[in-house]
Amino acid sequence: MRILGIDPGSLVTGFGIIDSDGRSSRHVHSGCIRVSGQDLVVRLGMIFEQVSELVDTHGPDVLSIEQVFVSRNPASALKLGQARGAAICAGVRGGLPVVEYSPASIKQAVVGTGSANKEQVQHMITMILGLDAAPASDAADALAVAVCHAHTQGTFGRLPEGVQALAFRTRGARRRSRR
Amino acid sequence: MRILGIDPGSLVTGFGIIDSDGRSSRHVHSGCIRVSGQDLVVRLGMIFEQVSELVDTHGPDVLSIEQVFVSRNPASALKLGQARGAAICAGVRGGLPVVEYSPASIKQAVVGTGSANKEQVQHMITMILGLDAAPASDAADALAVAVCHAHTQGTFGRLPEGVQALAFRTRGARRRSRR
Repeated sequence: MRILGIDPGSLVTGFGIIDSDGRSSRHVHSGCIRVSGQDLVVRLGMIFEQVSELVDTHGPDVLSIEQVFVSRNPASALKLGQARGAAICAGVRGGLPVVEYSPASIKQAVVGTGSANKEQVQHMITMILGLDAAPASDAADALAVAVCHAHTQGTFGRLPEGVQALAFRTRGARRRSRR
Repeated sequence: MRILGIDPGSLVTGFGIIDSDGRSSRHVHSGCIRVSGQDLVVRLGMIFEQVSELVDTHGPDVLSIEQVFVSRNPASALKLGQARGAAICAGVRGGLPVVEYSPASIKQAVVGTGSANKEQVQHMITMILGLDAAPASDAADALAVAVCHAHTQGTFGRLPEGVQALAFRTRGARRRSRR
């Protein structure tokens, strides 16, 4: 199973692609989409198109994305929401099921405790994927949400109900994009 | 010029399509996308796919969307942002330029004053488009943002810089979707 993990942000969106058989995982590709200093619509377009390109190029089976809980101001939340919506829609466009994990479940799955810090996540991702060096923080978080899906699910048979409904709805989109 | 107006919302997204030569405008299609009672990802997928379908079916030249200013809580802002991001990405997917107008400029363009209320907007949209009956509030707001673009722009030569940059960026997406 190939998993595309996304750590959404209004300025930097991390991405990480892994292959996993449910027990061991292999790093395929990771990095960051930086969109600062642009008009809002251009920023959203860049996130949507670059995530779409990752989907087209690497053909993941599922998009795994971090759930966001905002304690910040409404303006920041609106910006973050738009960026997150753009990344999710790139998965929808590609006909992928989209699954969400809370920050605590991601840390639990990767580090073994829901209260782990960023450095611990970076360290464990480097170990789990056998990387030579720790990936940048946003890329590490994206790889972590991908690893979380690999460790949590294993098979598509256990996807939550909403995800299956979405996969059903997007068959049309998949056909269109293959024309 | 055919304009798709969008009034984004986390539960109800209004849409309105008009044809305009910059002086007079004609109603083509309008209505609401209702997504309440669904999982978040499914809701975003529904907005993205239904707006994409409007783009594919009616072939607008531009997507005109209301700017949102949030005075509400961050959780509402995040939801609204995601819905708005989904609608904008449907325009990006279709290779459309996306333009934004503030609520005040929409009211100014349609009613003649930035402080008009919803009933005045509904009334003026009914008059401007020569409709037999006033459209529902969300559809009227979407038609208003389309009419605002028609009254404000007239030609594509005057689109703001960011919009042209986006139109340039999305040529690849347009090619992909035509395959």
